[in-house]
Amino acid sequence: MHILVSNDDGIDASGLYALVRELKDIAEVTVVAPDRQQSAVGHAITMNYPLRAIPFRKENQFFGYAVDGTPADAVKLAVKFLMKGRPDLVVSGINHGSNTAINIMYSGTVSAATEGTILGIPSIAVSLTTYEHPDFRYAAKFAARLARVVAERGLPSGTLLNVNVPAVSEGEIRGVRITRQGRSSWEDTFDVRRDPANREYFWLTGHMSITDTDPETDQIAIQQGYVSISPIHYDLTDRKMLEELKSWSVERLR
Amino acid sequence: MHILVSNDDGIDASGLYALVRELKDIAEVTVVAPDRQQSAVGHAITMNYPLRAIPFRKENQFFGYAVDGTPADAVKLAVKFLMKGRPDLVVSGINHGSNTAINIMYSGTVSAATEGTILGIPSIAVSLTTYEHPDFRYAAKFAARLARVVAERGLPSGTLLNVNVPAVSEGEIRGVRITRQGRSSWEDTFDVRRDPANREYFWLTGHMSITDTDPETDQIAIQQGYVSISPIHYDLTDRKMLEELKSWSVERLR
Repeated sequence: MHILVSNDDGIDASGLYALVRELKDIAEVTVVAPDRQQSAVGHAITMNYPLRAIPFRKENQFFGYAVDGTPADAVKLAVKFLMKGRPDLVVSGINHGSNTAINIMYSGTVSAATEGTILGIPSIAVSLTTYEHPDFRYAAKFAARLARVVAERGLPSGTLLNVNVPAVSEGEIRGVRITRQGRSSWEDTFDVRRDPANREYFWLTGHMSITDTDPETDQIAIQQGYVSISPIHYDLTDRKMLEELKSWSVERLR
Repeated sequence: MHILVSNDDGIDASGLYALVRELKDIAEVTVVAPDRQQSAVGHAITMNYPLRAIPFRKENQFFGYAVDGTPADAVKLAVKFLMKGRPDLVVSGINHGSNTAINIMYSGTVSAATEGTILGIPSIAVSLTTYEHPDFRYAAKFAARLARVVAERGLPSGTLLNVNVPAVSEGEIRGVRITRQGRSSWEDTFDVRRDPANREYFWLTGHMSITDTDPETDQIAIQQGYVSISPIHYDLTDRKMLEELKSWSVERLR
C-alpha cells in the first residue's frame, strides 16, 4: 500500500511527523505538503502563478516535496506529476486544531483530502482539537487504524472521512462516534487598529458559537470525549430546495 | 432594499459594473470586493494577515470599498464592519466564466455568496459562461429579476442560489432551468517548464471533462442554452454513507 500524506500546517509540522511515523508501519508513505502554514485557505488552487516543488528529506523519517502552494495544489501536483504510482490513500493532517461544523468550509486540512477524493482516491482528513501542548500520538495511531480499514473497504466515489480527535490522554477517550457536520458557526468580529501612518487595518477574530448541540454532530462528539468521524462529500446541491424552486415559476424571469 | 455586491474578479471588473447598473434600479447598492483578481481561491479567509479596505468611487456608478483579501473576507468585513446596516441580499458576480460542477468548489464568486449565506443573508452567485468578448447585459438583467424574487420569498437558512448564464445573445436564451451541481470534473495536467536558472516549475492546466450528461445538471443546461439556477448549501454530510459507516464497527478502532 502507498499513502500520500499532506496537510495545511506545512511540511515541517509536528502533526504531520506523528502521522507519518504511524502510517509507515502499514504502508509506503510519500509526503507532499505546502512549504509553509496554509490555514483557512479553503479549497483554493493556484492557477495564476507557477508552482515549485522542493525535495524535502526528514532524516530517518521520510522523503517528500515541499510545494509553494495550497494543500489542494500539493495533492494535485503529487498525484499528477511527482509520484511514480497513484497512491492508494490520501491522509491529510494531523491538523493542529479541530475542523468541525462551519470550519470545514475554511479548512486546508479537509481541502487536501477533498482534492484526493476529487482525483478518485479514498481520502481522510485528521485533526486534533487543540491549539496548546499538542500530543499527536493517539490521533496518529487512530488515523493509521482507520486508514487500514478504509484501504480494505474503500469509500464511495466523491465521499471522504473527516476525523476529529479530542485533545485528551488515550485513557480518557470515551469511544468513537459517527457524526454529521454540525450547523454551528462563528461570531466574527474585526479588531480595528491603526498602523504607524495612522491608516486603519483589520484583524479577523471571533469565537465559534455552538448553536447545534445535537450529540450526533462533530463538535459535540469531541466535546464529550469521542473521536468523531463524519462522512462528507462535495455534492452541494440542496435537493429539498431544488424541488421547491420548481414552484417558483422562474421561467417568467427569462 | 439594500444589496451588497461582491465578486472574485476584483472591484474594477466589467461584470461587476454591469451587475451594479441593473441592481441600482431595484435597490440601494454597496460594493465591497477584492482589490484584485481572486479566482480559484475557494472559501479562503485571511486570518494570519491584517486586511485593509480602501474607499473606491466609480464616478456616477457606485461607492464602495476595495479589500486586499479574498471574496469571503470582503463579504465578512462588509457585513460586520463597513456597512451601516445589514444588507437584505448579497449578489456576487458577474463572474467572467462559468461556475458549474466541480468548479463550484474552487470558485471565489460562489464563495462570496456562501459567506453571505453563512452570515444569514439570502445570497446569489452569478456567472457568465465565457472567457471571450463578454457581454454581461442580459446576465445582469436576469440577476436583477431573480434578486427581486429572492428578496420577496427569501431562501432557507444555509441555502444559496448559483446562477450560470449562457454566453449567447438574449434572443438565443432558450429558457431557465432549475438544476443540480453536475459531477463532471477536471482532467488536470501540469505544464513543466524551466526558469532562467534551469530550475523546474509547474503551471496547472487541463480541461473540464463532461462525464455527467444529465440535462438536469448545471453544465448541460447552459450548453443547451438555458439559464441554470442551482440551489446549493454547505451541509457537506453524506447521509447515506453516515448510515453505512454505522455498520463498520469503528468502535473497535478506539
